[in-house]
Amino acid sequence: MVDPDEVNALAQLMTWKTAVANLPYGGAKGGIGCNPRELTVSELQRVTRVFTQKIHDLIGIHRDVPAPDMGTNSQTMAWILDEYSKFHGYSPAVVTGKPIELGGSLGREAATGLGVVFATEFLLDEYGMSFANMKFAIQGFGNVGSWAASFIHQKGGKVVAVSDITGAVKNPNGIDIPALLKHKEKADSLKDFEGGDAMDLNDVLVHECDVLIPCALGGVLNKENAADVKAKFIIEAANHPTDPEADEILSRKGVTILPDIYANSGGVTVSYFEWVQNIQGFMWEEEKVNYELKRYMKRAFNDIKAMCHTHNCNLRMGAFTLGVNKVARATVLRGWEA
Amino acid sequence: MVDPDEVNALAQLMTWKTAVANLPYGGAKGGIGCNPRELTVSELQRVTRVFTQKIHDLIGIHRDVPAPDMGTNSQTMAWILDEYSKFHGYSPAVVTGKPIELGGSLGREAATGLGVVFATEFLLDEYGMSFANMKFAIQGFGNVGSWAASFIHQKGGKVVAVSDITGAVKNPNGIDIPALLKHKEKADSLKDFEGGDAMDLNDVLVHECDVLIPCALGGVLNKENAADVKAKFIIEAANHPTDPEADEILSRKGVTILPDIYANSGGVTVSYFEWVQNIQGFMWEEEKVNYELKRYMKRAFNDIKAMCHTHNCNLRMGAFTLGVNKVARATVLRGWEA
Amino acid sequence: MVDPDEVNALAQLMTWKTAVANLPYGGAKGGIGCNPRELTVSELQRVTRVFTQKIHDLIGIHRDVPAPDMGTNSQTMAWILDEYSKFHGYSPAVVTGKPIELGGSLGREAATGLGVVFATEFLLDEYGMSFANMKFAIQGFGNVGSWAASFIHQKGGKVVAVSDITGAVKNPNGIDIPALLKHKEKADSLKDFEGGDAMDLNDVLVHECDVLIPCALGGVLNKENAADVKAKFIIEAANHPTDPEADEILSRKGVTILPDIYANSGGVTVSYFEWVQNIQGFMWEEEKVNYELKRYMKRAFNDIKAMCHTHNCNLRMGAFTLGVNKVARATVLRGWEA
Amino acid sequence: MVDPDEVNALAQLMTWKTAVANLPYGGAKGGIGCNPRELTVSELQRVTRVFTQKIHDLIGIHRDVPAPDMGTNSQTMAWILDEYSKFHGYSPAVVTGKPIELGGSLGREAATGLGVVFATEFLLDEYGMSFANMKFAIQGFGNVGSWAASFIHQKGGKVVAVSDITGAVKNPNGIDIPALLKHKEKADSLKDFEGGDAMDLNDVLVHECDVLIPCALGGVLNKENAADVKAKFIIEAANHPTDPEADEILSRKGVTILPDIYANSGGVTVSYFEWVQNIQGFMWEEEKVNYELKRYMKRAFNDIKAMCHTHNCNLRMGAFTLGVNKVARATVLRGWEA
Amino acid sequence: MVDPDEVNALAQLMTWKTAVANLPYGGAKGGIGCNPRELTVSELQRVTRVFTQKIHDLIGIHRDVPAPDMGTNSQTMAWILDEYSKFHGYSPAVVTGKPIELGGSLGREAATGLGVVFATEFLLDEYGMSFANMKFAIQGFGNVGSWAASFIHQKGGKVVAVSDITGAVKNPNGIDIPALLKHKEKADSLKDFEGGDAMDLNDVLVHECDVLIPCALGGVLNKENAADVKAKFIIEAANHPTDPEADEILSRKGVTILPDIYANSGGVTVSYFEWVQNIQGFMWEEEKVNYELKRYMKRAFNDIKAMCHTHNCNLRMGAFTLGVNKVARATVLRGWEA
Amino acid sequence: MVDPDEVNALAQLMTWKTAVANLPYGGAKGGIGCNPRELTVSELQRVTRVFTQKIHDLIGIHRDVPAPDMGTNSQTMAWILDEYSKFHGYSPAVVTGKPIELGGSLGREAATGLGVVFATEFLLDEYGMSFANMKFAIQGFGNVGSWAASFIHQKGGKVVAVSDITGAVKNPNGIDIPALLKHKEKADSLKDFEGGDAMDLNDVLVHECDVLIPCALGGVLNKENAADVKAKFIIEAANHPTDPEADEILSRKGVTILPDIYANSGGVTVSYFEWVQNIQGFMWEEEKVNYELKRYMKRAFNDIKAMCHTHNCNLRMGAFTLGVNKVARATVLRGWEA
Repeated sequence: MVDPDEVNALAQLMTWKTAVANLPYGGAKGGIGCNPRELTVSELQRVTRVFTQKIHDLIGIHRDVPAPDMGTNSQTMAWILDEYSKFHGYSPAVVTGKPIELGGSLGREAATGLGVVFATEFLLDEYGMSFANMKFAIQGFGNVGSWAASFIHQKGGKVVAVSDITGAVKNPNGIDIPALLKHKEKADSLKDFEGGDAMDLNDVLVHECDVLIPCALGGVLNKENAADVKAKFIIEAANHPTDPEADEILSRKGVTILPDIYANSGGVTVSYFEWVQNIQGFMWEEEKVNYELKRYMKRAFNDIKAMCHTHNCNLRMGAFTLGVNKVARATVLRGWEA
Repeated sequence: MVDPDEVNALAQLMTWKTAVANLPYGGAKGGIGCNPRELTVSELQRVTRVFTQKIHDLIGIHRDVPAPDMGTNSQTMAWILDEYSKFHGYSPAVVTGKPIELGGSLGREAATGLGVVFATEFLLDEYGMSFANMKFAIQGFGNVGSWAASFIHQKGGKVVAVSDITGAVKNPNGIDIPALLKHKEKADSLKDFEGGDAMDLNDVLVHECDVLIPCALGGVLNKENAADVKAKFIIEAANHPTDPEADEILSRKGVTILPDIYANSGGVTVSYFEWVQNIQGFMWEEEKVNYELKRYMKRAFNDIKAMCHTHNCNLRMGAFTLGVNKVARATVLRGWEA
Repeated sequence: MVDPDEVNALAQLMTWKTAVANLPYGGAKGGIGCNPRELTVSELQRVTRVFTQKIHDLIGIHRDVPAPDMGTNSQTMAWILDEYSKFHGYSPAVVTGKPIELGGSLGREAATGLGVVFATEFLLDEYGMSFANMKFAIQGFGNVGSWAASFIHQKGGKVVAVSDITGAVKNPNGIDIPALLKHKEKADSLKDFEGGDAMDLNDVLVHECDVLIPCALGGVLNKENAADVKAKFIIEAANHPTDPEADEILSRKGVTILPDIYANSGGVTVSYFEWVQNIQGFMWEEEKVNYELKRYMKRAFNDIKAMCHTHNCNLRMGAFTLGVNKVARATVLRGWEA
Repeated sequence: MVDPDEVNALAQLMTWKTAVANLPYGGAKGGIGCNPRELTVSELQRVTRVFTQKIHDLIGIHRDVPAPDMGTNSQTMAWILDEYSKFHGYSPAVVTGKPIELGGSLGREAATGLGVVFATEFLLDEYGMSFANMKFAIQGFGNVGSWAASFIHQKGGKVVAVSDITGAVKNPNGIDIPALLKHKEKADSLKDFEGGDAMDLNDVLVHECDVLIPCALGGVLNKENAADVKAKFIIEAANHPTDPEADEILSRKGVTILPDIYANSGGVTVSYFEWVQNIQGFMWEEEKVNYELKRYMKRAFNDIKAMCHTHNCNLRMGAFTLGVNKVARATVLRGWEA
Repeated sequence: MVDPDEVNALAQLMTWKTAVANLPYGGAKGGIGCNPRELTVSELQRVTRVFTQKIHDLIGIHRDVPAPDMGTNSQTMAWILDEYSKFHGYSPAVVTGKPIELGGSLGREAATGLGVVFATEFLLDEYGMSFANMKFAIQGFGNVGSWAASFIHQKGGKVVAVSDITGAVKNPNGIDIPALLKHKEKADSLKDFEGGDAMDLNDVLVHECDVLIPCALGGVLNKENAADVKAKFIIEAANHPTDPEADEILSRKGVTILPDIYANSGGVTVSYFEWVQNIQGFMWEEEKVNYELKRYMKRAFNDIKAMCHTHNCNLRMGAFTLGVNKVARATVLRGWEA
Repeated sequence: MVDPDEVNALAQLMTWKTAVANLPYGGAKGGIGCNPRELTVSELQRVTRVFTQKIHDLIGIHRDVPAPDMGTNSQTMAWILDEYSKFHGYSPAVVTGKPIELGGSLGREAATGLGVVFATEFLLDEYGMSFANMKFAIQGFGNVGSWAASFIHQKGGKVVAVSDITGAVKNPNGIDIPALLKHKEKADSLKDFEGGDAMDLNDVLVHECDVLIPCALGGVLNKENAADVKAKFIIEAANHPTDPEADEILSRKGVTILPDIYANSGGVTVSYFEWVQNIQGFMWEEEKVNYELKRYMKRAFNDIKAMCHTHNCNLRMGAFTLGVNKVARATVLRGWEA
């Protein structure tokens, strides 16, 4: 079942996230209470079309723009687009995360991972550091984690530990990420990779490293393991990886946390770029997408820093304050019945 | 009260101005017959909303796009936007001069002043001159005059005289404009500025200088003072600063006048850029705004020059002929009931 | 009379052409069964307006966008735009090939000819050749042929033979194209040009040259003359200049043919750019138009090459396969009633 | 030329008239400044169509519904309907006074004249009188006057004098109206009718009679002739036949005047019925039209009487008070921005 | 397959039929090329919905209103209504022949048969005859024939012969129609009915009777059997039952034929009434439906008679002339581009 | 606060009620959580307008039509109408229960009370009884109760007991209802009425009578008093006056209960008539309203009786079964994704 309260909480989080990223968007969530793995492709298509018929008046290129989340993908977006277009004419901008053949943006697949790496770069730069010779531990090697690892590797960082649900690998000299990706594609697992040693899944979080990047589920850093974290920097590529208790423990230890609301906003930012390209009727080259992503993430980073400076607070508080302030300011300016 | 004839005249002037500036716009004016200073903010908001309810079918992103003029500001535009959106959905492009938080353009505040300076630069360049070591007198030190003075100062021009309704300052070695701005902000007046000598308000227009830039009201150059003007160039940053009699006297003296229809078109040009950014769903950086403003003003300057050359006329006549010709040509092409 | 089957065939061809060029367009054709040369301008305008009244619900900026073809021109587009706007408000993007004054694109007039030259350049480059010292024969000297000749001339190619319905000229050292254009404008004919020798019209196709560019009617290369062609490369600037029998003969001789579906797609590509500019509310400079045209044609050339490599086929087959595959892939993704 | 002030005055009069008649309508007037007699039918059609294109968004079946007035007729309405339908689909209710073949109402042609006779009947009934043996003088024998005369004749009234611009006839025993209509149709004049004696045109107004019905122009009863009027009742079938001075003179003499705002409202009432029939998609038989006309005129008569009783005023004042009160009451109920 | 020419012919016939019946409708036909008997109910529903999605912009309550014809029924109309309403909101008037539960009209099922009987009554009345003691032969005992027989029986006419594809019955004293209907419902055949004698199917058309009513297929009266027809009156309840040769033979014999275009128009007339009820939001009682059907058919009968009188032609020619004239007159009144 | 569950329950009840009454409506409820008695008229107007702005896309003449309920009245409907019309043009049919001056229906005020009396009449008629000499007790003397009492009095019934929150009156010979109404208007209370004796408020429900009509709150008949009820018939003019326990006790006693779902449906039925009149653009006379109300209530009564007969159930069960069956049947006919 779809829980209305949880949907509402996610919609609010999205609101602050888009405000921080300086996107002209609010936040909304919705879905169908079913298990897509139990439905045939034909049933999935039909339930998606009927759902679209029911909400076609509520979404729209200037109203609400769905994008894929858990249980949906670019094919789902294609069906929504097709059904929506029966009512309103061909409107590629009504969904993002579409197949490229139907107006999807280049670079969107890698966007969250790339955004995480840009965010890391800005943060390190604050401390006069760079990727070179820094050690990274990455928990989660799905879409976000594997792209993040690849970009870190390209930039000269050493990824010393990686895990996913199939296994974990470590190599104090840095794992050969392209080789690991090939291995995983072939073996469908991280196990038995020759370029490193196996390790316990859960140890990745407390592994010796400079930067820890949790890319999987929420709540993985908690009172059980927070005290054992070795990293000086945590980049929240997952949503809510650090629970409030861990947050306090890590703060006291002097660990710097880059909050999820900012760190993983690359995905929604490129969703916005996809919408812009559709609105403009003109698609960008991949270089342009990545250039603009970096520019947007840099501006948000600077805005958060300024907020932290003004309010003398940590990055998480700075980011939330930034998001809420922007929405509040716009609300006041729009006015209310006088 | 709102005088229909005057509104009509202003709408026509706007039509020629946008044609000269090569914007895909016509011209229109409208308003409410009231004194905004006599209304509370709540009353202003309500009268603005009711006005918007009455005209919401006449304005539109592809129809007519209001922008602030005397008695209205970015807050007014925000209210119009909010009320309009109740009828037509969120449509930031329906007004320009909005607050930046609601889709306003960077660089719009300075646009008219910057445009005046670009125009001056192109004109001087025709005569093989540049800002360096040229002397400027600026009448009016509000939004337009103060931005113009700042940019001239940055480009190495000497601003030797400045006035507004609170006082006038002169300094034959050039006034320190940043200092004057700070003084004005503090004192709310041009009086008692230590970086120059006080002078009579009205003398600024006939002060010794190379370039005179009237930035305040219409009709300030007239048969009373035209013969005494020392400047070789007049840049009409205000609307109608030179009345027809003065125009003739100055022409006979060999003064070159850059007409208002062109000289102060920077504001509407950046309003157009704001609309473009809203239409495209993607905002420009300030550098891009200023670059495009310069490009647009350069093209218009060249077009006016070409027209003057073809018809062997002065700049004012060249600009009007350019504007009227463009509108006439488009009208003929669109055709009429055959 | 308008033949529905032929209209249908042209609409399909257009569909593959836009798919190859990577434009977000399908293909459609329509018209009125009349001879425009027998109608007065007033009658043409009225028949165009009534036609527009009948189809105004079928065309649209996100539906179907007319452009000029045989018997219509930019004035016709202006009338359609004007009439359409009575129903839907001012909508410059609803037609392309408009007069520049009403939102037409810079560079569109030369676009097909320039596209032909870009295509030729990419092809020669594959063979390690360039324009310098290559000999070109151009059949047809209307809009496409004369622009193509000019650009070849600019790039250092030798145009050794040119023909149109008024005559043919040859010069083994290369014709002075700017001079020929001036001559033609004055004389309204290719005859009596002093910069070369007259020749038989039909001999141009079999003239001694490296590259033959037929720019006029379909079917000019056929079993009668195919065996006599001297060129090593044929660039199909016209539609269907090579009939199937000639195609086979030329292939056996080892002549490389760049097919029409790609070679003359510069026109529709810049029509698309015009639409993009109208959609975005912001016009491009001519340099930008030409830069994007080159980029688009380069990408399509690479895509065709890749397809030829995959399927081991010639350029014509590669281009068609590319177009059909793209449409098929999009159709599958959009889905059908499950 | 169309005089805006006069148009405005007529629109207001229409507002009170429809309020008195209890129709769910307001009042509006508009037109083109031209002389239809100087235009060909083809020109009339084209000017009507262009006019309709300009106002198609301002009229509408629930907005403003044109009907014929001076210089227009049912053919004009047919053209407006046809042009309007290009924009909004077939909408017969958008005009009234249409040809019956296109959705016009039966009984509309005779409606004003029949309404005048119903009004007369109700008034006489108040005084215990009926048509039998009453003498009527009718000035004007166009559409209104001739239908009024016919219905009076049918109901047993004696029409003792009739005039139009071609002549005047009197017969103290009552004119044979059907015979007069036949004579007029044949001779195109009232002259030389054998069923009565010729008389001076102007004498009809002061002829010996019980009821005088001016059916032609405004201002015919004035200080020159008011004192000589013999009738005890005046039915204002024309608009404004009695000027203010005559009104006072006649009042003092004890003449009862049934005001135009009520007396000639049969036309607009059946226009409303035509609209109702179009809205309902179902046409009424002529008997139903006339039955409802009588019912509506009876109700209005009773409402006016009640108002006269409440305010102790004459019929003209009672009718205006009724109309204004109704509009005021509805305005208060709809409310204003609180 | 659907034959476009036949569809076109049927659409034209419908146009004249609605004009004769004085309905504010034109004529149109459309369909899907499939055999409904080969599809499951689920497939029928889905194909109907997809068809509706494709034409939803072409039909509409003021545009084109589908009704059931061969291969479709009230359930089909319900699906069209449901699908159409997804796009345009609940719109019962968009189809007629709906189930009564969804806005269908009372009396529609019997309407064609009842209309046939009204038409017969008016025709007999012309000849001073009535149903009493007249003998009727009815070919076809489906929806139309059985309702016609019932109403004739109720009015005192003797139905002496009846046939359908299962058999034929005769009884010179008049068949007990209610008994025959019960028999048919039970036996699903006309065979073995005890209230009459069996006869050859084909003999019904040439059976001894006063009035012959063919209610089945077209072309049943032809040169083979026309000379043997005994009836004095033929009422064309079917479409095209009399071919042109038979028409001539029967005319020469003095048989009076009431043409299909009028005789079977009861169905479309009550479809129109259903639309009227939906438009008005208020349903009629069955008595009202039947009363209005009689009134409409009486008026059309009188109009045809008047046309026959004017043009001295038979009923078929009179009916067609009436229909074509009405359409022509409306077309002229609506005008064309002047 | 507005309780969503209660709103939902009321919306469902409304659905069955309109189905029983054979109205083409569903059911819906909505509101604002505030106490109208604590707001000024100006505040009420503003909150009503803002509410309307938020729901204007959800209501509509063919979508959802608000009518007054607790805490709102005809003035509220006027404001909704006015605000809605800003968005969609003047649309009187969008609300019912409007002031008559703005398109409200005659007879709506008395409709619920009159409907109660019609329902009572049909029920008594079933038992061969009439109003004459029957004794009625009426609990509640507001809009419903007082109109019901008046109509019963007019029809010859004896109202022997009446109560409201101010007091109770009894008179075994029948109360003079017109006199009681005058008394109440003057005294604003039922106390001290001279035409009867005072009694305890609660005793009215168990007073000696033939017919008991509870017209006030729900739950007044319960296990405390049900056994003491003397009436043979209970007419549920209020909503839910009989709780389930009382229902069972009364059934066992043989008391016949006419359920609320039918008995008080006169109000929504005339709301529907008001909508019909607005849709048709033509208002009914009061006699017509009352005639149709009686016809609708008679049909519903017969339908309920038939359902009771089929299912051998009491009136309450018959009414619910009727309502649910109608909705179910329509749902099946409209179909679902096949």
